[in-house]
Amino acid sequence: MPVTCSKTCLTCLITSPAFRQYFVNVDDTVTQTIVVHKSSPRGTHFRRAGPRQRVYFESDEVHACIVTCGGLCPGVNTVIRELVCGLYHMYGVSKVLGVEGGCKGFYSRDYINLTPKVVNNIHKRGGTILGTSRGGYDTQKIVDSIQNRGVNQVYIIGGDGAQKAAELVYEEVRRRGLKVAVAGIPKTIDNDIPVIDKSFGFDTTVEEAQRAIKAAHVEAESCDNGIGVVKLIGRQSGFIAMYATLASRDVDCCLIPESPFFLEGKGGLLEYIKKRLQENGHMVIVIAEGAAEGLILKNQKTRIQLEGLGSKLCSDFGLWISQRIKDHFAAQDIMPINLKFIDPTYMIRAVPSNASDNVYCTLLAHSAIHGAMAGYAGFTVGPVNGKHAYIPFNRVTEAQKKVVITDRMWARLLSSTNQPSFLGSRDVEAKNEEEPSTPLLDGENSKDETGTNDVATVL
Amino acid sequence: MPVTCSKTCLTCLITSPAFRQYFVNVDDTVTQTIVVHKSSPRGTHFRRAGPRQRVYFESDEVHACIVTCGGLCPGVNTVIRELVCGLYHMYGVSKVLGVEGGCKGFYSRDYINLTPKVVNNIHKRGGTILGTSRGGYDTQKIVDSIQNRGVNQVYIIGGDGAQKAAELVYEEVRRRGLKVAVAGIPKTIDNDIPVIDKSFGFDTTVEEAQRAIKAAHVEAESCDNGIGVVKLIGRQSGFIAMYATLASRDVDCCLIPESPFFLEGKGGLLEYIKKRLQENGHMVIVIAEGAAEGLILKNQKTRIQLEGLGSKLCSDFGLWISQRIKDHFAAQDIMPINLKFIDPTYMIRAVPSNASDNVYCTLLAHSAIHGAMAGYAGFTVGPVNGKHAYIPFNRVTEAQKKVVITDRMWARLLSSTNQPSFLGSRDVEAKNEEEPSTPLLDGENSKDETGTNDVATVL
Amino acid sequence: MPVTCSKTCLTCLITSPAFRQYFVNVDDTVTQTIVVHKSSPRGTHFRRAGPRQRVYFESDEVHACIVTCGGLCPGVNTVIRELVCGLYHMYGVSKVLGVEGGCKGFYSRDYINLTPKVVNNIHKRGGTILGTSRGGYDTQKIVDSIQNRGVNQVYIIGGDGAQKAAELVYEEVRRRGLKVAVAGIPKTIDNDIPVIDKSFGFDTTVEEAQRAIKAAHVEAESCDNGIGVVKLIGRQSGFIAMYATLASRDVDCCLIPESPFFLEGKGGLLEYIKKRLQENGHMVIVIAEGAAEGLILKNQKTRIQLEGLGSKLCSDFGLWISQRIKDHFAAQDIMPINLKFIDPTYMIRAVPSNASDNVYCTLLAHSAIHGAMAGYAGFTVGPVNGKHAYIPFNRVTEAQKKVVITDRMWARLLSSTNQPSFLGSRDVEAKNEEEPSTPLLDGENSKDETGTNDVATVL
Amino acid sequence: MPVTCSKTCLTCLITSPAFRQYFVNVDDTVTQTIVVHKSSPRGTHFRRAGPRQRVYFESDEVHACIVTCGGLCPGVNTVIRELVCGLYHMYGVSKVLGVEGGCKGFYSRDYINLTPKVVNNIHKRGGTILGTSRGGYDTQKIVDSIQNRGVNQVYIIGGDGAQKAAELVYEEVRRRGLKVAVAGIPKTIDNDIPVIDKSFGFDTTVEEAQRAIKAAHVEAESCDNGIGVVKLIGRQSGFIAMYATLASRDVDCCLIPESPFFLEGKGGLLEYIKKRLQENGHMVIVIAEGAAEGLILKNQKTRIQLEGLGSKLCSDFGLWISQRIKDHFAAQDIMPINLKFIDPTYMIRAVPSNASDNVYCTLLAHSAIHGAMAGYAGFTVGPVNGKHAYIPFNRVTEAQKKVVITDRMWARLLSSTNQPSFLGSRDVEAKNEEEPSTPLLDGENSKDETGTNDVATVL
Repeated sequence: MPVTCSKTCLTCLITSPAFRQYFVNVDDTVTQTIVVHKSSPRGTHFRRAGPRQRVYFESDEVHACIVTCGGLCPGVNTVIRELVCGLYHMYGVSKVLGVEGGCKGFYSRDYINLTPKVVNNIHKRGGTILGTSRGGYDTQKIVDSIQNRGVNQVYIIGGDGAQKAAELVYEEVRRRGLKVAVAGIPKTIDNDIPVIDKSFGFDTTVEEAQRAIKAAHVEAESCDNGIGVVKLIGRQSGFIAMYATLASRDVDCCLIPESPFFLEGKGGLLEYIKKRLQENGHMVIVIAEGAAEGLILKNQKTRIQLEGLGSKLCSDFGLWISQRIKDHFAAQDIMPINLKFIDPTYMIRAVPSNASDNVYCTLLAHSAIHGAMAGYAGFTVGPVNGKHAYIPFNRVTEAQKKVVITDRMWARLLSSTNQPSFLGSRDVEAKNEEEPSTPLLDGENSKDETGTNDVATVL
Repeated sequence: MPVTCSKTCLTCLITSPAFRQYFVNVDDTVTQTIVVHKSSPRGTHFRRAGPRQRVYFESDEVHACIVTCGGLCPGVNTVIRELVCGLYHMYGVSKVLGVEGGCKGFYSRDYINLTPKVVNNIHKRGGTILGTSRGGYDTQKIVDSIQNRGVNQVYIIGGDGAQKAAELVYEEVRRRGLKVAVAGIPKTIDNDIPVIDKSFGFDTTVEEAQRAIKAAHVEAESCDNGIGVVKLIGRQSGFIAMYATLASRDVDCCLIPESPFFLEGKGGLLEYIKKRLQENGHMVIVIAEGAAEGLILKNQKTRIQLEGLGSKLCSDFGLWISQRIKDHFAAQDIMPINLKFIDPTYMIRAVPSNASDNVYCTLLAHSAIHGAMAGYAGFTVGPVNGKHAYIPFNRVTEAQKKVVITDRMWARLLSSTNQPSFLGSRDVEAKNEEEPSTPLLDGENSKDETGTNDVATVL
Repeated sequence: MPVTCSKTCLTCLITSPAFRQYFVNVDDTVTQTIVVHKSSPRGTHFRRAGPRQRVYFESDEVHACIVTCGGLCPGVNTVIRELVCGLYHMYGVSKVLGVEGGCKGFYSRDYINLTPKVVNNIHKRGGTILGTSRGGYDTQKIVDSIQNRGVNQVYIIGGDGAQKAAELVYEEVRRRGLKVAVAGIPKTIDNDIPVIDKSFGFDTTVEEAQRAIKAAHVEAESCDNGIGVVKLIGRQSGFIAMYATLASRDVDCCLIPESPFFLEGKGGLLEYIKKRLQENGHMVIVIAEGAAEGLILKNQKTRIQLEGLGSKLCSDFGLWISQRIKDHFAAQDIMPINLKFIDPTYMIRAVPSNASDNVYCTLLAHSAIHGAMAGYAGFTVGPVNGKHAYIPFNRVTEAQKKVVITDRMWARLLSSTNQPSFLGSRDVEAKNEEEPSTPLLDGENSKDETGTNDVATVL
Repeated sequence: MPVTCSKTCLTCLITSPAFRQYFVNVDDTVTQTIVVHKSSPRGTHFRRAGPRQRVYFESDEVHACIVTCGGLCPGVNTVIRELVCGLYHMYGVSKVLGVEGGCKGFYSRDYINLTPKVVNNIHKRGGTILGTSRGGYDTQKIVDSIQNRGVNQVYIIGGDGAQKAAELVYEEVRRRGLKVAVAGIPKTIDNDIPVIDKSFGFDTTVEEAQRAIKAAHVEAESCDNGIGVVKLIGRQSGFIAMYATLASRDVDCCLIPESPFFLEGKGGLLEYIKKRLQENGHMVIVIAEGAAEGLILKNQKTRIQLEGLGSKLCSDFGLWISQRIKDHFAAQDIMPINLKFIDPTYMIRAVPSNASDNVYCTLLAHSAIHGAMAGYAGFTVGPVNGKHAYIPFNRVTEAQKKVVITDRMWARLLSSTNQPSFLGSRDVEAKNEEEPSTPLLDGENSKDETGTNDVATVL
């Protein structure tokens, strides 16, 4: 039975007059609740996130549960904390449970009680107090467990896979006619979720990557022809590598999956390294995890080696290319080099979130709470063009955001590192034939190339 | 003589097709160069910042100079570095001078040479390598000095006062018919510059403020009825206090100039402190420098004390209110309290900028360079609704951005601290009569209340 | 009934053969248990701390309690953690209680249970989880409470006052014939405890002070004739100021209670400031809290102002001298200066302990546990000339350790800052007449001037 | 010609009366200058480091040069800074040169000028501003170059190899009858230099290692049966691993070269891992680089794999053992584990030195300067039992300091981690037969097992 918002919700008391009155039942379909007008001349519209004047759930009937899935990312604990504290302080909800060990914990373990006291200091720790795991879930068992325990709000913090799981849970919930709200909080340390402006933990990650780059720079500077190679997180996208490079100003070359490059010959990476060492005596190279994607193969030998890497290509590419560089300079007796390889992955993702991510995580958690309390049945949250919105699950899982190398931010990186653009050769054309050329945009790189640049949230 | 952009400008080579071709002479007026359409149905429009296909200055005819004014702010050295490196690497400009000691250094000292090598590591240091000072400039002497030395690009990094000085210099330059571009990079540690989304150094400042809040929390927690009071920067606006409070989650009360509050009686601060200590045993209060603005006076005694503070009201208000709290609890023998006051001002503003501010400072510097090289004669730079734009000087100096307490971000803060809203009493109405009530907006707090919420950069 | 050490004590199993076998009953007097041979030709000897082959208490009969007293100091939580975990893991003791709120908590509150799980992460937090307070204890009530609750091991972490309290408790315990061991862990952020080499938290404090000095340096460098003044902890001794100055290399003058100095005239502080500003354009001054002790008064005016400071002399001296410097340069129109005063006290003492202090705190806690388990009835612990020892209470409370300004470390400081020695004038002689000249030692400054330089632990 | 110390040497003015007067000519042999009485009943004696009343060199005749060799270590820049500033400020020496690129730079490059201004801020940076390299030096060429340039003071900062080089240079210098002082400042990040108490940079390294351990702990805690493995620096000795483990309190097992361990069977590592995971759900293992030394082989299969590692055994052992653990739990289907391997080596050694190392580096540099200025012809410096001393080269190169696993500090580690001692089985006896059992000492582990425990500096 719909009720007006509880007295404890200061947010509502103050801001509610500014919002039109919506009342949406959890039984309604997502297409009704989360308005997406594609036909609008101004692009796709999402519903603005925030408190609603009328809430669907009574405070004391809410049984919320929270789960964290996938790899670690700074800020997960902050989101958990703010979900618990937000439900408690804004809506007077005291029954909040934690699912341990990721999605499979829904049915394989007891849930734990989460109270404001329990979560009070967890935002100062890295990782997730609930534990996490990848995949391995069973939608039927999850919904069985939710149903049996009487849970009526499910908060799922996780990446691509977890948002898909959330969608499946939401659909099964609707099929069974349960009055359960399923809210996704998208998590990806790579910042590769489409539609939303930025994923939580990204700022912290870029900040922490500075340590590794600084160390690489110190090592490189301290010996003759020193090369510091830093591998940064980013399997399908190079956002962390790009921003960490821009922030550091000590990097001479940044390789990402989106930007094609080649090793040998004129205009290639090896030539650039030689030139840079001759000019400056040392250099720092940042390599995104998935940079192998960008490598243009020129001769058979390299191809074979890469195939030898097999499925480990991604995780080993930084090491592979380091070895290639060493071999090149050793074999041809060009100059003795001194290469140091740094992989700070776990040291980066395990830190607690910084101040700006803490604020951001709070906003995400509050958006999710307001949406679930208002009875929106299935949705994910995030800022779109600067405004927090409710977004259908499929919009954040249908594609991956990538760095647009014709966009400004990559141009800024090129002018900052002075690295070659690796463009203009025949190889690039070959590469480009496979991937249709991205139309030239004048937008910021924080928007993706699919035209969502024009997306705006409208009530 | 207008020329096409130099070959070294990678940015142009890549992104230029995306921009319409402008050619603007430095003799043109700002109203011509920086388009501001107020009549547009979609609000005020500014010209998008970025490289232009045709540049006004030849690389080797540029004599640029850089000056820093006002108080310290994280990121000033990064802006200096990126102006020097950007001019050098993007446009092949090698004559860049630094004016030492603030605006008066234009005519009272020799300029120093700034090269990429000189500025290479300065972004890792706090402060400004050029030194700074407040006010005391003489426009005629500045322009005389510029003219005598043949300077034709002036970059002024500074706050409100410095942007006004930049405007005066620009006007005098035009009056004399000099072909000099004057570019302002707005700096304010308080984030109180209107129109632009955020000022540089703000993220770093909020991050660093966490240390002080954490210390206050540890001190408060470690003794009976411990109160930790942290004074944060913010004379006319409470942005730092608000964001630092939201990021920390350890703060029980945040006082800012924009939010009215009173000490005594029902619903007052002292009652809240007592209640919070009884519930929790300790508390943390964050006070913006200028929070005295928000104090509603109820009795004569308090008024007198405040008047006694005289012109030092602002800087001493944190100490004053700490003493008031101590006296209150001592006099009425309510409970023994243990108050610790922390003023981290200088420790915060002297740190080097963090990664996210480094990226931001780079963008500001590049915007300024592109504008000046394109021959825009007088402008300031900054992001407006997420897009970097050129803005007339007067738009950033005509008002101060303030926290809108009816807006969402302040509501979020209230729900995070659980402090009373201090609203609803007669006092508030009295207060509100003096200051006309702000219309209720649904925008984010990062936009100000003057309607610039609808501003968008076009072209 | 004496027993052999529990099987869980790995330390004993491995190291015990190296120790002579002692068995000391808690009824024995301290003069028997803690051997101090003053007549030895090699100085005073203390008993070496460490596990004993035979322990006095059975694991399951131990009721230990821990209390923390006085001001905060980095490492208190680490000591608490290691007492709890050490008792549990080394001796199988599971009944450990925490007394909250300092010594008065012995009789005014319930005790809390401390288990390895409860204290597992507390060493990563500053402050003390037990809370603390100063003075106000009642020995009779404390011993009554201990007796009533059946506590037989008391661990008191605190400074001078707390060690005296520990002694009184120990004496009352003996008077009543209780079989209770009382162990003190000396805590002082000032490092002014005699006999022991260094107090815990000192390294962390000196490290954290670097932030404030760095900020003062950045502020001073960024303006003309900038002076950064940093007040550091140290009421009776200047160890923190001295080591922080030596570590920083950015300090031009360090004032401590032990070193006489004067303001005006030839060779005075003001003359030095003027000279330093003229040479270098800026300077940093570090002032220990109690530096007023060292001020030699020359004229009546200064004396009056100091008297005006009254009992607040100590805490306000940094501000007072800052004002004196400002007035001097303003009044005599010598040069415009720009002075910034930083008081980082609470931000320093509230941080968690660093790695080296963590190791040190562990050693202290283990020494205390081994002593109490062996049945030593009353003692305090700490390293003496590099070896951890058991020390009678009175030896650590009878005097305060001070910086010996004729010793090497202060000489190193003088050569590092280039500040004047302020010695050689008549004033110094006058000063010295009051305080008998310290004999010139060639020892390190980490030993005090009372001759304990020759103290060595034996057995 | 001997002279009295310059007026600028405040140190001498103050402390000199405390020292007996020595005058030692650079032509004298080291046995004369650096007194080592082996026959003393109290052990080996070294000469106390410090200023001498009479100095051998005139300020303006000194041509000093500084070189840095070997791997990076926090504090190298601080030592360089203090050598330059100490020579300048204490003795008025202004001719100080820097040799770039390690020992081979003596003859392959021009020297650079080092002034107090040049080195003013270098202690805030990691690495070495002079650059470094390993080995490859030619003693004759070095001394030729020194002789040709008129250098008469050589400061060599480096490890084992560099101290041997220093000795060779010193001997060649004496053979040629040159009046050149050769001073070594021992550097080793592993803390494995014998005789001296601790090597510079060690505190910083242990501190920085905490980050990696903390990350490993967060990763391990966040998943089921998570194992975080951290590889720490330490090829022949496990000091860093031991102290980092003791400081962290999050480590469950620490493997070092000095402590024998075995993988399989009862009491082995794999059994312990299984037990620990069952008890606690996660664990952290710290592995010193050279821990392979301690591995006791039980079956042929393991031996073969180890041999396969060949010369890369050392650097790859952390990875090898991680793979072994994974294979063990996978093959036998015991339990699914989740192992994360972190190698923070370069991120640790590239940081700037912390406050306590800064003070320590200053003391080392000053000792070296005082010795060279006094005309001691060839010596290395360092603290011995708490007092800084001059030590003959051969004493620091003839052996390596190792962790004594029968000593207290390792016992403390065992009681902190609760790991098995891996002792008591037949295997250990076998192991011990190869390495004669170390006599059981009751000294601290900071002294080595060769009996230097009794060494004291005299005079």
